[in-house]
Amino acid sequence: MNDRPLILVTNDDGIHAPGIRTLIEEVLPFGRVLVVAPDKPQSAMGHAITIHSFLRLNRIDLLDGVEAWSCSGTPVDCVKLAIYKLLNGAKPDLLVSGVNHGANISINVLYSGTMSAAVEGAMEGIPSIGFSLMDHSIEADFSPVCPVIRNVVANAIQHGIAPGTCLNVNVPRTGGVPLKGIRVCRQATANWEDEFETRLDPGRKEYYWLKGEFRSHDHGEDTDVWAVDNGYVSIVPTQFDMTAHHAIAALNTWDHAVG
Amino acid sequence: MNDRPLILVTNDDGIHAPGIRTLIEEVLPFGRVLVVAPDKPQSAMGHAITIHSFLRLNRIDLLDGVEAWSCSGTPVDCVKLAIYKLLNGAKPDLLVSGVNHGANISINVLYSGTMSAAVEGAMEGIPSIGFSLMDHSIEADFSPVCPVIRNVVANAIQHGIAPGTCLNVNVPRTGGVPLKGIRVCRQATANWEDEFETRLDPGRKEYYWLKGEFRSHDHGEDTDVWAVDNGYVSIVPTQFDMTAHHAIAALNTWDHAVG
Repeated sequence: MNDRPLILVTNDDGIHAPGIRTLIEEVLPFGRVLVVAPDKPQSAMGHAITIHSFLRLNRIDLLDGVEAWSCSGTPVDCVKLAIYKLLNGAKPDLLVSGVNHGANISINVLYSGTMSAAVEGAMEGIPSIGFSLMDHSIEADFSPVCPVIRNVVANAIQHGIAPGTCLNVNVPRTGGVPLKGIRVCRQATANWEDEFETRLDPGRKEYYWLKGEFRSHDHGEDTDVWAVDNGYVSIVPTQFDMTAHHAIAALNTWDHAVG
Repeated sequence: MNDRPLILVTNDDGIHAPGIRTLIEEVLPFGRVLVVAPDKPQSAMGHAITIHSFLRLNRIDLLDGVEAWSCSGTPVDCVKLAIYKLLNGAKPDLLVSGVNHGANISINVLYSGTMSAAVEGAMEGIPSIGFSLMDHSIEADFSPVCPVIRNVVANAIQHGIAPGTCLNVNVPRTGGVPLKGIRVCRQATANWEDEFETRLDPGRKEYYWLKGEFRSHDHGEDTDVWAVDNGYVSIVPTQFDMTAHHAIAALNTWDHAVG
């Protein structure tokens, strides 16, 4: 029984979000499941970790036969606590993160706690996959994601995932129309046109709320933005080597004599 | 006067850290300076942004002739507020972040708020540079960093920085020995061997403090770890396209038929 793969499940929407329940149910047939997820929403926490404060873990009842812990920290804290506290340094055989309420396409991979947990898993040498549904609603219909989870997890167990990489899987909202299929993609070139809504507190002092609009400028049909806009699931292999190798040669022409 | 370049300065150690004062003083001769930095330490906040709460800005006196604001949010929040609130969407000509108290070599680029601010600048199309000194002490001697800042900023203004990239500059602690020079590097392959120190609160309930040990496994002499270990300043061109382009071909051999 203990030869079955150990699957670590986490997310950034918090352990009580509907998306993580879908993910747990779909990966349960593949192995033993350990859940360590934030005790509150931790969206857009990126790769943040907690170093100026301490962390807590609380055992909770979530689903029969599943060991589940809520964690006071970030998604990346959850991965670290799972490995270095609960598993005493042992590595799970697979890490899955999500299902995120909302897309994590393009540059959102950098802001996303869901994907940062998967990236942390890859840094630990664990085959890791982040799943996101392009629907922020708490009442989102996760049923189209289920066969996608089964397909990608089965493939990952059969073929492995390239060392130094994890997978960023995004599922479009279909409105009942069947998904057209799965596309392997690159991260689209895009940006956020941000805006801050200014409000006055009761003491007449300003405060600001971030409101952004996501804009893709990428005409390529090999991108994650194109895929989800056209009814396909996107899979982007994602790496944590952020070196811009192509930019090294030009920098070596600079005069680096330090006066 | 207003034709002089506008330089945005931020960091993750907080606006009152000695490192940011060194950085401001060194970039002042190159242009007008706008400082927007966290009002408290925000180390290891990665690319986190504040979406579940609001943000505040407070004008403060820092240095004569320098407009400075402390921000209640993360380093990336500071960059967004500078551009989209204080500058009404106008982009600075240069962004510099740091000088960080502690190294940001190798995979630490992902955890670092200092480097995430520079990455956010690159995402906004701004030539951006993060500076770090391999010394966590509040009393660290930043004087060896000064000529490095002048050299790299002058080069960046003269040559520009490749679109989609920023620079991660790390300066070793020399203990009085002159720096050997500057090396353009790639991000070393390394990991954190983490550990959680378990303590009991007065109610006998456990809490955990993260303690990690950084381990490089990379024998290359073209890495940032090698450079700083051997008395050189490292510059790693850093990109926000996290696509593992080399891993796409293999993923296209998977059976992606969703049942």
